[in-house]
Amino acid sequence: MEKKELLYEGKAKKLYETDDPDLLWVEYKDDATAFNGEKQEVLTGKGRLNNVLSSMLFATLAEAGIPSHFEQKLSDTEQLVRKTDIIPLEVVVRNVVAGSLHRRTGMAEGTELKEPVVEFYYKDDELGDPLINEDHIRMLEAAQPDDLQEMRTGALAVNDALKHHFGKHGLLLVDFKLEFGTTADGKLLLADEISPDTCRLWDEKTREKFDKDVFRYGLGSLQEGYTEILKRLGGA
Amino acid sequence: MEKKELLYEGKAKKLYETDDPDLLWVEYKDDATAFNGEKQEVLTGKGRLNNVLSSMLFATLAEAGIPSHFEQKLSDTEQLVRKTDIIPLEVVVRNVVAGSLHRRTGMAEGTELKEPVVEFYYKDDELGDPLINEDHIRMLEAAQPDDLQEMRTGALAVNDALKHHFGKHGLLLVDFKLEFGTTADGKLLLADEISPDTCRLWDEKTREKFDKDVFRYGLGSLQEGYTEILKRLGGA
Ligand SMILES: Nc1ncnc2c1ncn2[C@@H]1O[C@H](COP(=O)(O)OP(=O)(O)OP(=O)(O)O)[C@@H](O)[C@H]1O
Ligand SMILES: Nc1ncnc2c1ncn2[C@@H]1O[C@H](COP(=O)(O)OP(=O)(O)OP(=O)(O)O)[C@@H](O)[C@H]1O
Ligand SMILES: [Mg+2]
Ligand SMILES: [Mg+2]
Repeated sequence: MEKKELLYEGKAKKLYETDDPDLLWVEYKDDATAFNGEKQEVLTGKGRLNNVLSSMLFATLAEAGIPSHFEQKLSDTEQLVRKTDIIPLEVVVRNVVAGSLHRRTGMAEGTELKEPVVEFYYKDDELGDPLINEDHIRMLEAAQPDDLQEMRTGALAVNDALKHHFGKHGLLLVDFKLEFGTTADGKLLLADEISPDTCRLWDEKTREKFDKDVFRYGLGSLQEGYTEILKRLGGA
Repeated sequence: MEKKELLYEGKAKKLYETDDPDLLWVEYKDDATAFNGEKQEVLTGKGRLNNVLSSMLFATLAEAGIPSHFEQKLSDTEQLVRKTDIIPLEVVVRNVVAGSLHRRTGMAEGTELKEPVVEFYYKDDELGDPLINEDHIRMLEAAQPDDLQEMRTGALAVNDALKHHFGKHGLLLVDFKLEFGTTADGKLLLADEISPDTCRLWDEKTREKFDKDVFRYGLGSLQEGYTEILKRLGGA
């Protein structure tokens, strides 16, 4: 497999084409950003931690029968994924109240939800990735109704699998963000990344935060938090 | 029927108890407010215009087979309604892109939608009446799932009836906000008001605005706009 032209550089990853038109070469960067890019820093080692964790978590999902774009880990900071046409929606699943759910609804931070809450955000940096509802999604033609249903069901399945997996290692999965895309042959596939950049993970007992909130709110060393997660999941 | 104690004073209306525990006496005020109360003014005649229009529109809905809390018009500025326990949701139906739908999604103002868009806002002034989705509504226990379904269906039925009614008089129903409540005997009922304070109404051809946006954006005389609507609907 050969790394070809840079296709897209995002805030956290670089995507390169390969000699296979269906596969992309992903490089995880050390850049940390928050608040729609307002806060940013280079944090050495972050790219490796996210790449390793994302690879492990996609593999865990595959074992649980949940396919994704993940093909294989190529190096400490690189992985090979299936190329998709990304659906411009961020799918968020929440088990515990935190962040914008607290600000939006006034529900106390830390409240455990009886049932998971699913949210769709419109991927548009200029608009600030606004929360939208299913009528808006239809209006914007952001996703087909059946894909939307599949994304919702798929996101809840990912939640079941990951909540269980993290739970076994003393970690509380508070919430996370997923992205889905459509492959060349028209299949909906889980894509992007699953990492402490895109999940909130707390110590089950002390509720210490190990995820990107450490960086967002200046609570300590991001790399220490991510390393703790990796250690608990049995990685290095 | 006797007017008893003041039960609640809102920005646009006063609600009084009556000698019948199931009925409320509503007084429409001349106060105009916008942007969550940031802009406010007293506009003489507004209370009468809204009371007359709201009475006419609730009567029109009753003729179309859509019940509401409206019982009868008592005076120029007063009406008798059925008392409800208001569900803390604002139900918005949209036929044309305007206001926050434009700001949220980036869709051009004035775009006619293929299908109406329904939105739910959480009635909470401190939180700024945020948009929420059906998962949030369940989480907040703001409405029972079957009531939510009935509110959605009911709001779309109101839209069909009102769009048709305004259309006959050269008015384009851009969007509107409804509130629903539960009566003492547990029935879901359309409540609050339907007026140019709670609807966007444009001239079908010129797209001139006749509704509260005239006040919001200082486009001219609110009373002239509301009077034009009343005139077109055959009132005075
Ligand atoms: N399998 C895939 N095929 C195509 N694109 C993908 C795939 N997986 C992820 N992407 C896209 O890769 C891009 C780069 O990721 P990164 O996380 O750096 O982006 P970002 O800065 O979060 O910006 P944004 O998501 O707003 O474009 C994202 O746009 C993401 O949607
Ligand atoms: N049938 C009804 N039974 C009980 N309350 C009602 C009924 N119809 C309307 N209301 C309530 O009357 C109140 C007064 O109306 P008004 O429009 O002045 O309120 P507001 O300033 O918009 O404030 P808010 O709606 O946020 O309370 C509103 O709270 C509304 O929900
Ligand atoms: Mg990203
Ligand atoms: Mg009101």
